Amino acid sequence: MYRTHNCGELRINNVNQDVILSGWIQTIRKLGGMTFITLRDRYGLTQLVFDENISDELKQKVESLGREFVVQVNGKVIERSSKNPKMPTGEIEIVVNGLSILNKSEIPPFTIEDETDGGDELRMKYRYLDLRRNPVRKNLELRHRMGQEIRKFLDGENFMEIETPYLIKSTPEGARDFVVPSRMNLGEFYALPQSPQTFKQLLMISGFDKYFQIVKCFRDEDLRADRQPEFTQIDCEMSFVDQEDILNTFEKLAKHLFYEVKGITYNEKFPRISYQDAMKYYGSDKPDLRFDMKFVEITENVQGKGFKVFDDAEYIGGINAKECANYSRKQLDELTKFVQRPQVGAKGLVYVKCNEDGSYKSSVDKFFSQEDLKMWTDLFNAKQGDLLLILAGSKNSTLNALNELRLEMGNRLDLRDKDKFAPCWVMDFPLLEWDEEEQRYFAKHHPFTSPKDEDIELFGTDPGKMRANAYDFVINGVEIGGGSIRIYNSDLQKKMFEALGISKEESEDKFGFLLDAFKFGAPPHGGIAFGFDRWCSVFGGSESIRDYIAFPKNNSGRDVMIDSPSQIDKKQLDELMLILKK
Amino acid sequence: MYRTHNCGELRINNVNQDVILSGWIQTIRKLGGMTFITLRDRYGLTQLVFDENISDELKQKVESLGREFVVQVNGKVIERSSKNPKMPTGEIEIVVNGLSILNKSEIPPFTIEDETDGGDELRMKYRYLDLRRNPVRKNLELRHRMGQEIRKFLDGENFMEIETPYLIKSTPEGARDFVVPSRMNLGEFYALPQSPQTFKQLLMISGFDKYFQIVKCFRDEDLRADRQPEFTQIDCEMSFVDQEDILNTFEKLAKHLFYEVKGITYNEKFPRISYQDAMKYYGSDKPDLRFDMKFVEITENVQGKGFKVFDDAEYIGGINAKECANYSRKQLDELTKFVQRPQVGAKGLVYVKCNEDGSYKSSVDKFFSQEDLKMWTDLFNAKQGDLLLILAGSKNSTLNALNELRLEMGNRLDLRDKDKFAPCWVMDFPLLEWDEEEQRYFAKHHPFTSPKDEDIELFGTDPGKMRANAYDFVINGVEIGGGSIRIYNSDLQKKMFEALGISKEESEDKFGFLLDAFKFGAPPHGGIAFGFDRWCSVFGGSESIRDYIAFPKNNSGRDVMIDSPSQIDKKQLDELMLILKK
Repeated sequence: MYRTHNCGELRINNVNQDVILSGWIQTIRKLGGMTFITLRDRYGLTQLVFDENISDELKQKVESLGREFVVQVNGKVIERSSKNPKMPTGEIEIVVNGLSILNKSEIPPFTIEDETDGGDELRMKYRYLDLRRNPVRKNLELRHRMGQEIRKFLDGENFMEIETPYLIKSTPEGARDFVVPSRMNLGEFYALPQSPQTFKQLLMISGFDKYFQIVKCFRDEDLRADRQPEFTQIDCEMSFVDQEDILNTFEKLAKHLFYEVKGITYNEKFPRISYQDAMKYYGSDKPDLRFDMKFVEITENVQGKGFKVFDDAEYIGGINAKECANYSRKQLDELTKFVQRPQVGAKGLVYVKCNEDGSYKSSVDKFFSQEDLKMWTDLFNAKQGDLLLILAGSKNSTLNALNELRLEMGNRLDLRDKDKFAPCWVMDFPLLEWDEEEQRYFAKHHPFTSPKDEDIELFGTDPGKMRANAYDFVINGVEIGGGSIRIYNSDLQKKMFEALGISKEESEDKFGFLLDAFKFGAPPHGGIAFGFDRWCSVFGGSESIRDYIAFPKNNSGRDVMIDSPSQIDKKQLDELMLILKK
Repeated sequence: MYRTHNCGELRINNVNQDVILSGWIQTIRKLGGMTFITLRDRYGLTQLVFDENISDELKQKVESLGREFVVQVNGKVIERSSKNPKMPTGEIEIVVNGLSILNKSEIPPFTIEDETDGGDELRMKYRYLDLRRNPVRKNLELRHRMGQEIRKFLDGENFMEIETPYLIKSTPEGARDFVVPSRMNLGEFYALPQSPQTFKQLLMISGFDKYFQIVKCFRDEDLRADRQPEFTQIDCEMSFVDQEDILNTFEKLAKHLFYEVKGITYNEKFPRISYQDAMKYYGSDKPDLRFDMKFVEITENVQGKGFKVFDDAEYIGGINAKECANYSRKQLDELTKFVQRPQVGAKGLVYVKCNEDGSYKSSVDKFFSQEDLKMWTDLFNAKQGDLLLILAGSKNSTLNALNELRLEMGNRLDLRDKDKFAPCWVMDFPLLEWDEEEQRYFAKHHPFTSPKDEDIELFGTDPGKMRANAYDFVINGVEIGGGSIRIYNSDLQKKMFEALGISKEESEDKFGFLLDAFKFGAPPHGGIAFGFDRWCSVFGGSESIRDYIAFPKNNSGRDVMIDSPSQIDKKQLDELMLILKK
């Protein structure tokens, strides 16, 4: 037996017990003739004491120990004279009378502490050592807890977890597929799923009614920050439901997780915002509602006064930064530079300070009178001491820049507390999105999303105006999930493919089995998929999903720890009848 | 709202309620002016009644209905005059007063009934329709229940579910890998995992202590019956444990599943059999212990009497088929033909009938006296009325043939009841297996399996004799899982690679990261992996894992429903810099 207890559980009422512990050596301290060692395992830390009277043999072993050695000790639990209230086991220590070294360790390339001295790259290469650190381990514990609670909830709601295949078929829509050459069917390829979308719809046609799966998905995209080529989805689908049923079911799931994992109770319904309003008030389809600071559009109120920037603008609007009238020139310059960054893309920033004395100071005093400025501040509902920040330009790009500015002000004003959560639903997304480059429509959500009944007639006349039965779940400005009510009628599906410029042949070739399936009694159905990695990271208060993945890949899609991808044997290529182009 | 109730829940105490149901039309029967329809969903069947007095409009709709149409009905629950005790809802029916056709259906290519008229191929092509059938749905319900209970148990035992990556690295040992060309790292490939073996060992090195995962694995093998290129493993690993800890933990898991899923309580420990005994008594490392019928070896007792077949044999042994002395010549001929089949491979069969009158009748009366035969029957502990079946030949092939004969007799005597379960552990497997073709040793389990301490010295002298700390979990003659205590010491691991003929360079190249990791304090650890598909099929009483997979592939690795694998666009190949050899 390697242990009677783990390193996190001994307390004052264990005093005088003989125990065996196993674990890793975190620290070694010498004090006079005594040696103090902190022993670590997944469950915590326990202090070991070797006093002056230990045998020479034991003394010699202790001398040979180093950081991260794996040892087994037996000894007696005693009460500490100087207790450590920060440590759960801090009231006791173990007087060791036997030790065996289970394994040695080389000196690790970085310290295994909460704050480590290891850089990103080094910690990725030695990920198995980084995983020993408390904060990283806690992230995976959170993920485990989330996964179990999701399953517990959905099982309780009569959902069935059904595994769908990984070796499937390349499809034309969406991102690029990873493909897998088949040796038994030479010249042919499987594709790894970007999502189990078609399979979950087939399961609805099969009558499974309520399906879910926590499942890996794959996208061969050029990786931006915080994208991974493989990621995990909580994939769900229901039959005989409308949008309201789905929102209610998964709002209940979210509330379950908030309660079980974060200890937060929500009594009220999550806010619901239309896509249109989200764009109008926050310039984003994933607004961060931890703070208000809605956009106010003033285009029609401020033009015609000779200020060319405004007079030429398609859109003029801004935000009210409360109690920021005291911002210095330096701070305002910083904000101007912020909005001028290429990622934000504004030309400049107009500000209006609502001074405490009732006067206004703006960067456009030349063109606008105090009365003009007062009228603006009324539109913003601004009070003395507030600061208006205004951008102008083409509509979409200005809304986008204002969104960035609003989030930046949220950061500066500490309004984006990572321990505060503001969930919401964003609804009524557009069905289609025009792609300038390819000169065709793409599905905003995916090609199986149904249009709103009242918009179907627009297929022939103005498809860009159509709204979808589609919804996103957003927490703190992060898209956690999205879904839709699906098309379940073959004719409507064909219209959709036409609008997307997918030819009859192509749709037959790629989705033939799904279109066939629709002919045999497809029920009304819809669903949602959540990004599991992202949900974990938002609950954990981190911006990076990588922190919540045991073995993530870097931005070039490499696993630097195992050094993958890598070259393969020529024999393997030959068996697959593949040649590498030079 | 599409429904107030599902099709499986209405009972006599719902009578007089107004309800809405949605589902598929299973059957339509006309009786006088009445129409009876059975409506089906995942939860059951409910009878709908349309009486003579319904409106013309409703009448017309009912006339247009066909099998598998999706409809929504509203009506009143009434008590049936002729109840159907076989149907959970058989005491009631719904008098329908409104119906809407949610979707039509073409006539399905086979009947959606418990016993269908569809052949295998047709049902695979229309798998989404096959999944509508009760027996298939129930299989997936069993699988769902198993999955939830496994997680519940392991979570309760403090195991953490940790997802390991799917895009990993090709390894030389084991079966052939599926590979995935990388576009971002041209000329390089990922491999899909055959198992998360190395990652779970890294997680132990990371200190995670108790890990599990229910996870897809991939093997590009030439598919025999009941193999799938992708399959699901329950993968588990623990630290600071010895073999006994692992067996106890997972025996507890198995008992939990037996109880929760099958309603069976086991109070006693599962039997444990050494590999040696399993081969000696059952000729198999996965003995079916639902019945006894152990082999009895009689080599030394029967030679030297002039019967050349025996005198030349390395091994002579047999089984006692109790109460089969009355077998006819025809039955005995059948058994002889059975053992002579190429898959079984025996030359012939010797029988001894223990007649009720105390005499013996054998197929070798020419060579052996009644006293000889009596002596044999004593060795078999046979009684009057029993039948001895004896094979002779080279040892391994005879043991193998006897195993087949024993299982065949088990079938003939109805001793292999699919509702009876006989779990056991098979222990002390050989560490290595000699491969005649490649003239080298392979790991019997895998290259990280540790040898028994007392056998380590055999590395240099007789590696084939070494026993491993390895164990299999077997139910009803089916291998459900297997595992081992791992090597956690770099030096021992190197010795193992040497014994396997894996060069230092190759091991560095393929397992370098694991060997590196071992240098930083690897704890003693071990684990087990269960075949989830197979465990489901054994619990479900089926021989085929395919019945327990929602979307299985056929024996050529094809998904005939989605027609995959398939050709991909030249653009995709170009992006991957790949050329197909003609």
